[in-house]
Amino acid sequence: MFFKIPTLVYFEDNCIKNHQKELVVFGDTCLIVTGKRGSKINGSLDDVTKVLKDNKIIYYIFDEVEENPSLQTINKAYLQYKDKDIKFVIGIGGGSPMDAGKAVAVMLHYHFDDVYKLLEKDVIHKNLPFIAIPTTCGTGSEVTGASVITNDRRKTKQSIGYRVYPEIALIDSKYLYSLPEQVLINSSVDALGHLIESYISSKATDFSNMIALEGLRVWGLNKDNLLNPKNLTKKDYDNLMLASVYGGMAIAHCGTTLPHGLSYTLTYNLGIPHGNAVGYFTYGYLKYADQKDVKTVLDLIGFKNLKELRDYLTEICKFEILDNYILDLAVKQLKDDKRKLSYCPYPVNEELIRKIVYAYRND
Amino acid sequence: MFFKIPTLVYFEDNCIKNHQKELVVFGDTCLIVTGKRGSKINGSLDDVTKVLKDNKIIYYIFDEVEENPSLQTINKAYLQYKDKDIKFVIGIGGGSPMDAGKAVAVMLHYHFDDVYKLLEKDVIHKNLPFIAIPTTCGTGSEVTGASVITNDRRKTKQSIGYRVYPEIALIDSKYLYSLPEQVLINSSVDALGHLIESYISSKATDFSNMIALEGLRVWGLNKDNLLNPKNLTKKDYDNLMLASVYGGMAIAHCGTTLPHGLSYTLTYNLGIPHGNAVGYFTYGYLKYADQKDVKTVLDLIGFKNLKELRDYLTEICKFEILDNYILDLAVKQLKDDKRKLSYCPYPVNEELIRKIVYAYRND
Repeated sequence: MFFKIPTLVYFEDNCIKNHQKELVVFGDTCLIVTGKRGSKINGSLDDVTKVLKDNKIIYYIFDEVEENPSLQTINKAYLQYKDKDIKFVIGIGGGSPMDAGKAVAVMLHYHFDDVYKLLEKDVIHKNLPFIAIPTTCGTGSEVTGASVITNDRRKTKQSIGYRVYPEIALIDSKYLYSLPEQVLINSSVDALGHLIESYISSKATDFSNMIALEGLRVWGLNKDNLLNPKNLTKKDYDNLMLASVYGGMAIAHCGTTLPHGLSYTLTYNLGIPHGNAVGYFTYGYLKYADQKDVKTVLDLIGFKNLKELRDYLTEICKFEILDNYILDLAVKQLKDDKRKLSYCPYPVNEELIRKIVYAYRND
Repeated sequence: MFFKIPTLVYFEDNCIKNHQKELVVFGDTCLIVTGKRGSKINGSLDDVTKVLKDNKIIYYIFDEVEENPSLQTINKAYLQYKDKDIKFVIGIGGGSPMDAGKAVAVMLHYHFDDVYKLLEKDVIHKNLPFIAIPTTCGTGSEVTGASVITNDRRKTKQSIGYRVYPEIALIDSKYLYSLPEQVLINSSVDALGHLIESYISSKATDFSNMIALEGLRVWGLNKDNLLNPKNLTKKDYDNLMLASVYGGMAIAHCGTTLPHGLSYTLTYNLGIPHGNAVGYFTYGYLKYADQKDVKTVLDLIGFKNLKELRDYLTEICKFEILDNYILDLAVKQLKDDKRKLSYCPYPVNEELIRKIVYAYRND
């Protein structure tokens, strides 16, 4: 088994300000990759630009990352700043801006003429130094090497072929305060998915289980709060963020499996937010897993049985009713994803994938 | 709070063989730093030299590291191999060879004319890439940046000023099989000290506690076995090693505090093995700590109360009866170690240090 979390993680109030001096070593010019709105509303972009100014680091801002970023967006950022002598990249936001930032950091290192080269496997993993600043509590991308983008040719989301571990993750839960309620919930359900799919995984080890189980315990502290997120305290936000970081650390070792693999079909075709789509398949995944493991999960997050978790997810996620067409497409797309299937600890064939996919709707 | 374990850790059977290809990237010439006997008896040195040969890496062996290595030994290794164009260093053994290897890796980077420069603080931490292969189950040095050496000028052990995180730790518990019983026990008591001093620490965080508590749980699995280590199974050896790795990961975040600080006096002056000396002060340290935290520790490792732990340590460590002179010297040396004192989570003055130091003998 292995343990690999090369990212230096800081998790504290005023994190960006406290650790500004550690950015200087990466060079005098940086590119900030972020989304259109979030990082302006929550203050993270201002916090970053202030410390960059104070430390005389020249910066450019690419703020056009959409949800589920396309390779075209990544290429646009690359082409716009490739001649600016960028020394490092800062990704600010949820999974989309951070993952796009990672991909841009690869492009700025290799200067690919074709952005689709990012998808190649068996590559030498090099990139400009990347700093991650998460502002949602789901992705965990701040501590993983993964960069998930939308591949319009394959009509789904997938990981790029390059692993980009952030040099530093600067984590401050105050950036969650302004998140819309449903985004906060979807994020947290994504984190729950990471924790569950790491623990119930053929790749699980003593190391990853330590992280996943502690993450589940911390996630459980906010179980009831997510039913009504109006009165979250600072401590609650810290724990939401911490559970998400643990989720990232866990999937850094185990990857994700069926619920994530299935979710991409819903997100690509229906625009269902990522965490919500993961949550939709979580019940089915657990239904066919070793029930001893499922009990461990349920105990830690505070549910008596799987039905209670199912009802809970229904309430907070407000799942859409999905028709056969999309569910069948999810089955079809997953059944060829050998990697995701191999991470499932119980044997799956097409028939069982179908049962898992339909479990939520049929039960 | 922070999380920092930059070392890539592999923990498995035939670890060196399995990951030999990952050594090639560090260059074509390496220096092995090890002790006189252990790595020859347990097979680790042969395993390393075989993969180096197979991968056409030129290697030199410095096998003169003594227990509690001196700066003179480190300088000797440096002078002997400084002109050999060494690209990376492999440390094989317990804490002494690994810590000496780290220090040599710094010397080979900086080429200091005076080996005492290793002791300077506020330095830029650079070193040749360092690979760690532990063959005892106590130090945890394979996952920390610390290198503890003997400073004959200060007449005690201390950390060098440079942090040297191994690039890779290759961990295979089979190297424990040939350890003399008492060495195995002393090692494990050192690991226990790391876990306890990390959990009961002013530096403890959610991250470090996750590791320390899991480490204590795993350590507890061998509690009874250490009373009679004759019939250890492979799984037991794995857990002894795993607990030690967790101890290292925990002190990478928290450092060590009073028992370690006090232990150096016994080791320097009486030659008492490191783990044994740490164990001697563990009872006193716990006696004056928050008893809620102590109960958490005792529950995890399987003791009803502190007296039970005291009797257990007495049995496995066979502590010498120490006279006032040495205990008073330990008090005297510790009371000026501001860093070690500041990591103690409860207020300590000279009087309390004295109580802690004498607790084992007096109770």
